[in-house]
Amino acid sequence: MLDASRRWRAQGHTVGLVPTMGALHAGHLSLIEAARAENDVVVVSIFVNPIQFGPGEDFARYPRDRAHDEGLLSGVGVDAVYRPRVEAMYPPGASTRVRVSGVADPLEGAARPGHFEGVATVVSKLFTAVEPDRAYFGQKDAQQAAVVRRLARDLDFPVEIRVGVTVREPDGLALSSRNAYLDPDERRSAVSLSAALRLASAAYAAGERRPEQLRKVLCGRLEAESLARVEYAQVVDPETFTPPGTLAVLAVRIGKTRLIDNHDLSKVFPG
Amino acid sequence: MLDASRRWRAQGHTVGLVPTMGALHAGHLSLIEAARAENDVVVVSIFVNPIQFGPGEDFARYPRDRAHDEGLLSGVGVDAVYRPRVEAMYPPGASTRVRVSGVADPLEGAARPGHFEGVATVVSKLFTAVEPDRAYFGQKDAQQAAVVRRLARDLDFPVEIRVGVTVREPDGLALSSRNAYLDPDERRSAVSLSAALRLASAAYAAGERRPEQLRKVLCGRLEAESLARVEYAQVVDPETFTPPGTLAVLAVRIGKTRLIDNHDLSKVFPG
Repeated sequence: MLDASRRWRAQGHTVGLVPTMGALHAGHLSLIEAARAENDVVVVSIFVNPIQFGPGEDFARYPRDRAHDEGLLSGVGVDAVYRPRVEAMYPPGASTRVRVSGVADPLEGAARPGHFEGVATVVSKLFTAVEPDRAYFGQKDAQQAAVVRRLARDLDFPVEIRVGVTVREPDGLALSSRNAYLDPDERRSAVSLSAALRLASAAYAAGERRPEQLRKVLCGRLEAESLARVEYAQVVDPETFTPPGTLAVLAVRIGKTRLIDNHDLSKVFPG
Repeated sequence: MLDASRRWRAQGHTVGLVPTMGALHAGHLSLIEAARAENDVVVVSIFVNPIQFGPGEDFARYPRDRAHDEGLLSGVGVDAVYRPRVEAMYPPGASTRVRVSGVADPLEGAARPGHFEGVATVVSKLFTAVEPDRAYFGQKDAQQAAVVRRLARDLDFPVEIRVGVTVREPDGLALSSRNAYLDPDERRSAVSLSAALRLASAAYAAGERRPEQLRKVLCGRLEAESLARVEYAQVVDPETFTPPGTLAVLAVRIGKTRLIDNHDLSKVFPG
């Protein structure tokens, strides 16, 4: 991978990297389109990274469908797909981890111990293997994007971190590979996340600024769904992921499926 | 730094990096010579890395003498000196650390908590800033070299780790910037480290293989010096730094100065 990337750069080309875990959907495609527009060469990595899943999480059943992914990618002008094997990424004896403190500690970091260490480690490895000029992450995983931005800055990776807007279903549900886990009842309940964000955004637009009131709006809508169990619902600073701020962040279990979503309340909710 | 390095590589040149904390001596120069012989371009970094010093260690008084270093470097054909400022390496908010487990845990890792995390973090940053083809470390810091080798492999840095033999004073004392701390009495006592390694090597050559006996030889010689206080004296595997093995590793305080040294007992002690 690195040889190819260095050959491209030797030819004066810029390289954009879109890191994914496969199970590609329109959210990924919009990141690929952005990478396409801003770089001469686009690399998509597909790697379900075991070390970012905790024990009891969904590593084993995470959707993997190579034919589906390749079908989607064939239409969008990707120059290379980097698909390392787990044993190549973490051979016996591998023992190095990259850890980001601060922005990686609350919310997803607290709910999923070790998750961001796994993310930071694999992203560092992707950056050294691809040496991209730009790398693309989705706003749906807002805290992840902030962790990656911190990591790139702190370890001097010469890569620009670009964040693409969340792509949503017509009813507002943020696209996620994990939506595939939802049965029809759960799928209907899952709209509560985006609906809650929309309501809080409307409250903010009407002048509400009190964090506790905004949280009440979020939780009120979420708790109206019998299948939903709120893991966190906070309004935080989009850099530090601690209050106060305007970024509403949600983690909610719908049945057994854990979904996350977020929205900057100072902006109109789309759609 | 990265721009320069990428320009060199674009011209087909290979780049060798010799990371140092300054206070240069003949040990560093021998690494620079090796880099000179194996690469088209040689970069020496000089950075006294605060995060690899523990509280109460010698960060503040670590020898810094820019004129001395530049004098030495001017004679040896170095293409660039990379001398980042502390505030550029660790600006406010920087919060990412690289941690190696396993090989970094015993001995120096146990004696100096956080030391190897500081080393792994700064070396990662030097690797991303310089993108060297080869990087040079001294055998005197044997465990550090093993940690760096592990880290480079684990994070996919495309760099070959080269280790240069320990350079010694005529009486056997391994060169170290910290030797400057020693007063004349301490300087005389400091020979005990290399003397102990020489004795253990002779015992090994005479057929002694029992770890406890080899340790006894090491400690016997060290404890004969009233100014010396043994921190550890072990015979370990040179990859894992745990017993059993043939690498004798020492950490000894001579007065207030902490010195380390090591030797592979299966090889003749030099001089």
